[in-house]
Amino acid sequence: MTVTYTSSVSTSSVVSNFLGLLVRWRGSIYKLVWRDLLMFLGMYTMLAIIYRLLINEEAKKLFEAIALYCGNNTSLIPLSFVLGFYVSIVMKRWWEQYTTIPWPDPIAILVTTSIHGFDDRARAMRRTILRYVCLCQVIVFTMISPRVKRRFPTYDQIIEAGFLLENEKSIIDNLDLAFPHYPKHWMPIVWAASIVMRARRENKIRDDYAVKSIIDELNKFRGYCGFLLYYDWVSVPLVYTQVVTLAVYFFFLFSVLGQQWTEQKEEEDGFSVVKWFPILTILQFFFYMGWLKVAESLINPFGGDDDDFELNWIIDRNITVSYFIVDGMHQEHPELVKDQYWD
Amino acid sequence: MTVTYTSSVSTSSVVSNFLGLLVRWRGSIYKLVWRDLLMFLGMYTMLAIIYRLLINEEAKKLFEAIALYCGNNTSLIPLSFVLGFYVSIVMKRWWEQYTTIPWPDPIAILVTTSIHGFDDRARAMRRTILRYVCLCQVIVFTMISPRVKRRFPTYDQIIEAGFLLENEKSIIDNLDLAFPHYPKHWMPIVWAASIVMRARRENKIRDDYAVKSIIDELNKFRGYCGFLLYYDWVSVPLVYTQVVTLAVYFFFLFSVLGQQWTEQKEEEDGFSVVKWFPILTILQFFFYMGWLKVAESLINPFGGDDDDFELNWIIDRNITVSYFIVDGMHQEHPELVKDQYWD
Amino acid sequence: MTVTYTSSVSTSSVVSNFLGLLVRWRGSIYKLVWRDLLMFLGMYTMLAIIYRLLINEEAKKLFEAIALYCGNNTSLIPLSFVLGFYVSIVMKRWWEQYTTIPWPDPIAILVTTSIHGFDDRARAMRRTILRYVCLCQVIVFTMISPRVKRRFPTYDQIIEAGFLLENEKSIIDNLDLAFPHYPKHWMPIVWAASIVMRARRENKIRDDYAVKSIIDELNKFRGYCGFLLYYDWVSVPLVYTQVVTLAVYFFFLFSVLGQQWTEQKEEEDGFSVVKWFPILTILQFFFYMGWLKVAESLINPFGGDDDDFELNWIIDRNITVSYFIVDGMHQEHPELVKDQYWD
Amino acid sequence: MTVTYTSSVSTSSVVSNFLGLLVRWRGSIYKLVWRDLLMFLGMYTMLAIIYRLLINEEAKKLFEAIALYCGNNTSLIPLSFVLGFYVSIVMKRWWEQYTTIPWPDPIAILVTTSIHGFDDRARAMRRTILRYVCLCQVIVFTMISPRVKRRFPTYDQIIEAGFLLENEKSIIDNLDLAFPHYPKHWMPIVWAASIVMRARRENKIRDDYAVKSIIDELNKFRGYCGFLLYYDWVSVPLVYTQVVTLAVYFFFLFSVLGQQWTEQKEEEDGFSVVKWFPILTILQFFFYMGWLKVAESLINPFGGDDDDFELNWIIDRNITVSYFIVDGMHQEHPELVKDQYWD
Amino acid sequence: MTVTYTSSVSTSSVVSNFLGLLVRWRGSIYKLVWRDLLMFLGMYTMLAIIYRLLINEEAKKLFEAIALYCGNNTSLIPLSFVLGFYVSIVMKRWWEQYTTIPWPDPIAILVTTSIHGFDDRARAMRRTILRYVCLCQVIVFTMISPRVKRRFPTYDQIIEAGFLLENEKSIIDNLDLAFPHYPKHWMPIVWAASIVMRARRENKIRDDYAVKSIIDELNKFRGYCGFLLYYDWVSVPLVYTQVVTLAVYFFFLFSVLGQQWTEQKEEEDGFSVVKWFPILTILQFFFYMGWLKVAESLINPFGGDDDDFELNWIIDRNITVSYFIVDGMHQEHPELVKDQYWD
Repeated sequence: MTVTYTSSVSTSSVVSNFLGLLVRWRGSIYKLVWRDLLMFLGMYTMLAIIYRLLINEEAKKLFEAIALYCGNNTSLIPLSFVLGFYVSIVMKRWWEQYTTIPWPDPIAILVTTSIHGFDDRARAMRRTILRYVCLCQVIVFTMISPRVKRRFPTYDQIIEAGFLLENEKSIIDNLDLAFPHYPKHWMPIVWAASIVMRARRENKIRDDYAVKSIIDELNKFRGYCGFLLYYDWVSVPLVYTQVVTLAVYFFFLFSVLGQQWTEQKEEEDGFSVVKWFPILTILQFFFYMGWLKVAESLINPFGGDDDDFELNWIIDRNITVSYFIVDGMHQEHPELVKDQYWD
Repeated sequence: MTVTYTSSVSTSSVVSNFLGLLVRWRGSIYKLVWRDLLMFLGMYTMLAIIYRLLINEEAKKLFEAIALYCGNNTSLIPLSFVLGFYVSIVMKRWWEQYTTIPWPDPIAILVTTSIHGFDDRARAMRRTILRYVCLCQVIVFTMISPRVKRRFPTYDQIIEAGFLLENEKSIIDNLDLAFPHYPKHWMPIVWAASIVMRARRENKIRDDYAVKSIIDELNKFRGYCGFLLYYDWVSVPLVYTQVVTLAVYFFFLFSVLGQQWTEQKEEEDGFSVVKWFPILTILQFFFYMGWLKVAESLINPFGGDDDDFELNWIIDRNITVSYFIVDGMHQEHPELVKDQYWD
Repeated sequence: MTVTYTSSVSTSSVVSNFLGLLVRWRGSIYKLVWRDLLMFLGMYTMLAIIYRLLINEEAKKLFEAIALYCGNNTSLIPLSFVLGFYVSIVMKRWWEQYTTIPWPDPIAILVTTSIHGFDDRARAMRRTILRYVCLCQVIVFTMISPRVKRRFPTYDQIIEAGFLLENEKSIIDNLDLAFPHYPKHWMPIVWAASIVMRARRENKIRDDYAVKSIIDELNKFRGYCGFLLYYDWVSVPLVYTQVVTLAVYFFFLFSVLGQQWTEQKEEEDGFSVVKWFPILTILQFFFYMGWLKVAESLINPFGGDDDDFELNWIIDRNITVSYFIVDGMHQEHPELVKDQYWD
Repeated sequence: MTVTYTSSVSTSSVVSNFLGLLVRWRGSIYKLVWRDLLMFLGMYTMLAIIYRLLINEEAKKLFEAIALYCGNNTSLIPLSFVLGFYVSIVMKRWWEQYTTIPWPDPIAILVTTSIHGFDDRARAMRRTILRYVCLCQVIVFTMISPRVKRRFPTYDQIIEAGFLLENEKSIIDNLDLAFPHYPKHWMPIVWAASIVMRARRENKIRDDYAVKSIIDELNKFRGYCGFLLYYDWVSVPLVYTQVVTLAVYFFFLFSVLGQQWTEQKEEEDGFSVVKWFPILTILQFFFYMGWLKVAESLINPFGGDDDDFELNWIIDRNITVSYFIVDGMHQEHPELVKDQYWD
Repeated sequence: MTVTYTSSVSTSSVVSNFLGLLVRWRGSIYKLVWRDLLMFLGMYTMLAIIYRLLINEEAKKLFEAIALYCGNNTSLIPLSFVLGFYVSIVMKRWWEQYTTIPWPDPIAILVTTSIHGFDDRARAMRRTILRYVCLCQVIVFTMISPRVKRRFPTYDQIIEAGFLLENEKSIIDNLDLAFPHYPKHWMPIVWAASIVMRARRENKIRDDYAVKSIIDELNKFRGYCGFLLYYDWVSVPLVYTQVVTLAVYFFFLFSVLGQQWTEQKEEEDGFSVVKWFPILTILQFFFYMGWLKVAESLINPFGGDDDDFELNWIIDRNITVSYFIVDGMHQEHPELVKDQYWD
């Protein structure tokens, strides 16, 4: 589930609110960065030990030359710029993906208002249409999210969860043999549309507008599901991700050399203080690496990060609420009474 | 309520207009920054006193080294860049949240034009549909805004305010037991849709288009309410907020050291003037901290900041205007007369 | 009225086109900046006179120290960054506000094609619906634009202009007493919807689609008007405007000191030339202050700047064209003849 | 016509593809920049000659001081920033304007499927509606594009081209006298709507949906045309264009001084090489001036630049294709036969 | 086909995930950059050999002067800025083009639910409409994608693939003679609309809404196809692409000189280490050239790059799925049974 924190920062004027955010662990920068930081510090310490204890004067000279070269030239790569643009792009996609997830609620409301009757056939129609809608979503989610895939590794688990029936599975299986390379998420939507037409023929739907409205909503739902696949197929181009990742990692590879304390630098004013702890280097590491981690944790919003969306929750919620709207609450509403401000 | 000031800056050519903005207090940078500034100045003064009065020569040397190190290296963190991108993202979300708030006016106009009749039943239908619409909004607002939550801590206060009736509450309570983890804001919308269908069956609505139009608008309303929940659940990723906040606070932590006057710097030209008051440092503090505060006060637009939206006003306005449109003004309009330009 | 100049820059390859833009006065940078520039130059000259003529050696030393301190540290505030982001946001809002202004033309076309009849009653219906639509716009414009407010300070002027009748005014006045804090721009739209329903009942509109279409357009019109109010209520947060304005003004406050010619700087190569005229400082002033003025003149696009929208023109145009479409041209069109390419 | 080149860069991995783009002339940076570059080089050479040959030692000293001052301070104006933001805004508008151009194809398809009959009257109706639609576009294009204006300086040329008939012109002329300040592009659309209503009355259109669909599309078409006028009336604010243009030109005015070779600089390492050709200065000129030219050539996309849209082509294409769809192809389609994959 | 990698980066907290991305070859920075890098290294080595081995002292002096001049002044061109803005614009277009590709699924669903009957004529109608829709797409794709053009160089290959019939080809050929300069992709859509009207006349479609819905979707499909052509005709302006490409290539042309090791620089601390391998220069090359390659590989998303869209796959998928929906699955759905949660 995503990490929600806005309720704890409802007022900005209190200093402690935002400082309070800094000591969280779930979804935090510390949790994302600590492994990399350890590696960085390990390399830094190793190099420091080598330089200070293990090597002779001549090697020290070389080391100092390399350190100086790296220290002077890390500014050749304008990290902040490329990170700013890259993170903007990734965040935009991340949010768009979230808003692309379709909800079956409008279909449920249309179905419950349009398909009349309390007999088993009408109930089955309403429930089945909504089941197919949720099934379409489940199939798409298994394609884009490793977490949902883990829950539904094959169609059998989907059957167990009640989204699919055996006879339906065999139809899909046949189709999988015929066209193995095409996703099949649109099939349940086509079935649902056929049931809507049958309901119209059996006069359970009483006018053509309602048919059109439901078909439109089904098409919209399918369209959004297709869009989710789009986002999965076409990521931010690999080369962009590589450019940014390479830049950050190499930046710190050279930092680990260039920010070393050396005897030579000793003479520079103020540099003696970093002999034992390179505090600003670590801060810089936190800053740039954290910024990169923002992008990394958002590039696949349906993965397993703390900040990723909990699609399994959505699946359960949708089938439950859909059944409830089209069956449990079918055309019921509280008694009509005069309200408080009647006159 | 948000701070409105555009009317006082309608013309840019007069210098005093924009300078006038600078001396406001409500929603101003001063109100947001003064606590942090006091802390910053306190630390600065404390360190200055320690350095100038309390410590011996050797400690001074160390202090000077640290100050120099911090002063030279604060530029390692490109604050302006990350703030620019972060504030852009937060402002975009802030405005989108505002425009996502749905208004019941289109539903009210459709209901009053479509559901005919001046008898009690027709009136009750019209009023109840709009009440349910407003109820949906109230439920959502209590979930996203601490201020509205404070006004309606439980369903009882919503009943008192006239948005909910006892029998409706018991239905929702039952549902809360059955599915405790799912929001229930869509229930009143489903009820409203059922009443619309009943009105059609009782021929109070005379054609199917009107039904479709109202159902569509109800669905749109529910969709927007759901979107408001989205914005609440999925904030700007915590790690981004942490990166920016950490960067700004650490920047000034090092600034408080690095911008200290030291005997060593005395020799630099022009630095003697900051012996008593670090004016540019304070300005820089205002600038960066103010920029951060822009983001902090916008990240939860439904909180308690001066610039946050007044949802309670919206709730009251909506129920009043809705009742007035569907009941007070029902199918009334001023007499049709010839206007001034008739010929 | 906004300043239109694209027609004079239709080709970019001719140098003189864009240089020609630089010598305009209306809506130009010079017109917006000259007051501030005079103040800046006044302060600069005053300080120069004080330094060069009035003070003794010791004071000169202090002055030089301050000048040096300011000169070295103005780069602490990254003006160009914050201006770039701020102006982008303001320009986006400015354009969105412009495109939000609704036009009654689609309603007029729907009304004239749907409400049949040449008798007085049908004519009155068509004209009154459009009058109400324009009235809604006028009410909203008086709320957001000081210029329109000056034209219509009270309802009486709106009556004089023929948008409102006495009996309608008394209804609105009553409502103003009942709910003083809510805008009333939606009332004429509700009236217009009621007239549409009456026209349907009197069979002047012959099918239900037309009713739906007109009601939809009325709702859209009201929605856009509401959006214009949104933009007025919720400006760019005051704190952001303050941060930017403060930064620019303080930047130049320190510039006026830091860019002074001092005897000390005399020694620097090339600095002697600014002894009499700080040309680059002035250019810099033009640049940054002009950039800020872009934002200032756009932040309230309905104000009195040269670049602001002429809402009064829009009001007059709309009522004239609306009446003409629904009455003057009602269901008329030139005779149908064979065109030039018939065969 | 715009300069199309994507087909020659379909693969990025081949070096020569993109290098190939650099040697084009039409729409190229060279074509846009060469005049300015000549001027710049002229001034540069003139100043170099003056300095090296014509003036005495004392004047040289002054010259050197000015050159040094200019050379050191050009960085005061952050050109790249303001250009980046400005060009982004201009490009966004440019593309939006292009996508705003409406096409009559959907109207043509609706008209041909809805208005039945092969008799002259039905044909005339279909053709006239489409002619009016194209006429609306032509009127708007003459207002926004100097090229189209040159083709149709008065209504007479429009009549000659077959878009307008004499009797229609006299109606518009009368209206021009009555309301001289309002554009008249909506008139043909109102006529078209009236013809649609007449076709419905004469039962050439058989259902009300079709009427609604065509009226909706006509309204959309008119709306887009109105939007094109918007873009023309409200350009990027003049002050922004002036700030950017001034900044670039003054930058190079100071560059021409500051990048001069002087005897004084001779001593600096490496500077002797620019004694005869300031290669990097020219490259910088290409870069910044080219960036500015991007904006200049896009700010009026309907002008006469190589990259501007060919509206005349669009006008001809639209009337031809419209007539063909509604008349030549009216309700015809190839015979229905079994396709290749029938079984 | 585009390079999909999100599934391998579903969790950001594991270091190895993103490092794993760095060792890919398909669609990677290495594959795109290696040619340029070889050229760059070749030039660098050649110059180094010339300088170190082949030339005399005087020439070395000149070389050193040039190297110094280039080394000091490459910062005159703010590469990171212009690349950031340019890549943002190109990526935005790239994604928009992808989302503009229309899919025939909604048309297929509407056609299968609306056109009733299992007889050959009904089947032929349904199949032919969808075939025309796919044909429209194929024609557009041949115009924008060299890969699809290679598959369908003339109409004959389209006939072979079953999208077009001989008699249809002769109609298009005639039209090609009449209007050679206009694209013809809208013709199949007009035919499809005519078939829909015929189906209505033959009562295979039973209500007018269905007709309207299908016509609307056909229009939408045609609109999207037209938009794809837009993107092809109007690229990012050539001058912008040239500015950026020139800047990057010249930057490295001067880098190859300016970053040379010279005897003179030997004296600088730390520079001796680059005598044999200019590691940071190469990293910088990777960074900037990789960033440029992002833009180059996205500017024509329908070309032959690894990251380009596989339109041929889309063509095959669409015709297969369309036929299957409108014919194979026509109004079939699995039997209606009680689901798992029936009670």
